[in-house]
Order: sequence, then C-alpha cells, then structure tokens
Amino acid sequence: MSTRLPVELAKAYRLLNHGPTVLVSSAHGGARNVMAAAWSMPLDFSPPKVAVVIDRNTLTRQLVEGSGEFALNIPSREMAKATLAVGSVSGREHDKFREFGLAAFAGDTIAAPLLEGCLGWLECRVIPEPPIQERYDLFLGEVVAAWADARAFGNGRWSFEAGSPRSIHYVAGGNFFETGEAFEADKPC
Amino acid sequence: MSTRLPVELAKAYRLLNHGPTVLVSSAHGGARNVMAAAWSMPLDFSPPKVAVVIDRNTLTRQLVEGSGEFALNIPSREMAKATLAVGSVSGREHDKFREFGLAAFAGDTIAAPLLEGCLGWLECRVIPEPPIQERYDLFLGEVVAAWADARAFGNGRWSFEAGSPRSIHYVAGGNFFETGEAFEADKPC
Repeated sequence: MSTRLPVELAKAYRLLNHGPTVLVSSAHGGARNVMAAAWSMPLDFSPPKVAVVIDRNTLTRQLVEGSGEFALNIPSREMAKATLAVGSVSGREHDKFREFGLAAFAGDTIAAPLLEGCLGWLECRVIPEPPIQERYDLFLGEVVAAWADARAFGNGRWSFEAGSPRSIHYVAGGNFFETGEAFEADKPC
Repeated sequence: MSTRLPVELAKAYRLLNHGPTVLVSSAHGGARNVMAAAWSMPLDFSPPKVAVVIDRNTLTRQLVEGSGEFALNIPSREMAKATLAVGSVSGREHDKFREFGLAAFAGDTIAAPLLEGCLGWLECRVIPEPPIQERYDLFLGEVVAAWADARAFGNGRWSFEAGSPRSIHYVAGGNFFETGEAFEADKPC
C-alpha cells in the first residue's frame, strides 16, 4: 500500500531535481486530461517554481491556459506503459483516464486531478508569462502543494531503496531509463 | 580512450532528455568558468533549444550575459566529485579549472571551453529574453553544435551498456543518482 504524505514546499524542488519524466494533468470547464512531458525542471527553491514545455497543439495547453493550473505527477516504472500511452494520443479524441484505466484523486489546492500510482505530485499555479508561452510553449508555475509516496520519498529526499518503486527518465521510441544507483560524491578538498 | 563524435542537431535534445545534471561552461573577456546546474532541460527539437537556470550572483551569469554563449557539458559518474566541487565555490575567487584539475578543449562554434571527461556537450547561443533572465534567472539557448562520447552515445541515443560511463542526476547534499537500467515500455494497445 502506498501512503501519500505532504512534502514541505521548500523541499518540493527535490521531487524534480533528478530530472524524471512527468505527467502533466489538468482540468477546466468540465474537461480533464493528462499528457507526458520529458521537458520539465525546477526553477526556484522558495517559493518553489517549475518550468514545463506544453505544446500549443495539445488539449492540455487549452486546459492549462483556461484554468491557470496544472499538476506534475511523477510516474514510477510500473507506470511506464501508461506514460507512453498518454503521450501517444490526444485528449481531444480520447478520454485517457478511461481508456488507459487511470485512477485520479483530488488535490489540495487546484482542480487538476492527481494520478494514482505516481510517486510524487506537484500542484502548480501558472505564473503568466504570455510571450514565452507563445514563443516557446514554455510554462512557469508556482508549486502551491506537493505530495510524495512514503515508500519512495521521505525526510525531504527520494530514498529508492532496493525494492521500492523508482522514477523514470524518457529516452525516445518507447525507451526509458530507470533512476539508478544512489551514491555520494566525495566533498571537494 | 574516449572518442568525441558530432551529434546531429535534430538529435541534440536526446542528450538532455533523461534529465542529467550538467556543467555550464562559459568564457568572456579573458575569463572562463564552469558551474554545476541540476536545472536544465530541452526546449525544442529543431532548431534545438535548451533552458537553464543561471543564478544572478554567479560569475557564470556575468560571462554568459557578456558573451551571449554557454556550453552544457554532461558529466559522467567519474566526474561527480568535480561536479560537486565546481558547484560549491565561486569562479570569482577560484580558478576552478586549475584548482580541480579540469582539462578543457575548444568547441566548434562558441568560445566557451568544453570539459574533458564529459559524455556530451551542447554549444549554445543565448536567445535573449531579458524579462525572464531578470525575473527567474532563466536562460534560453539555441544549440549550435553538439558532441558525444562514442562510448556512451551513438545513433542518436545514449547506450550506457554495462561498463560504459553513465550520466548522473543530482539529489542534494553531495548525493546523486546514476542513470539506471534501460527498458522499453510496452506500446499502448
């Protein structure tokens, strides 16, 4: 069983610091959607901010611009097939939640659904920067709530012990890397 | 021995797609520097673009703004200690290349030095967006040349076979994850 625990906002950047692929979920005007995004990163520590690329042709873009909100969900390896699936079809033609059997739960602060089975969740409010949204499909968001699966993240960092679920990093063509071995670099002299 | 090969520009995003920690190198007016950055990502395929956060208090920021150029170098696990070291002190007080024994070679297109021992290199020209540079320390760049170590990257993708050097993902406090096992997700039904 997974247990979701809140992540202190000043530590929310840690959920994304190692560069996992994320799922972007959104809702607006009775519609909801989820897409995959390999291109996201932290942008600031406190208040925590993130950056994510959301293509102008996606339904997600429409819902994010309409609602001013999105969530970044961090899938586990067990969700790699679903990650590929939601990144392969458009929410305009498919109810991805129903077709791919994805369950969602309500966030604390925003209306975008959060995906069951993920390892971390960042609820974000768009920081409006229309020129870069238009020119680069680049969206900035302030993280207003964050959560993590206690099996994989605790005391402000990922644990990824042997046997715990791990995050994933998209390559191309259906290929991923799993987040690998943890190690500590020697401190500089 | 490592062999550096050019990476086709349309595939340059693949060097960053899995979210590795990078080293940002720069040069201007007779000075050069290198810093670590966990916060970078691809921004577009072709022409390839990237985004990276460069704090306003760094020497790197001054050199990047002065030259309009930077390189993203992708370190291997063997360079984790150096990555931590160059992220721990300022180039204003330290010649990091000399103090940490870092060798560099010349890029093809820009003046920023490229670091020996890395697995991939992206030579970038700043795409000026002063408002987001000022507000968020966020820099956008167009990738004008890219290179990879043939031991780790070929045919437009990372190989990371057993025994080959691997990229790294920063956590916090001197801790990293190595890029882990490659796997293919089942295609959606």
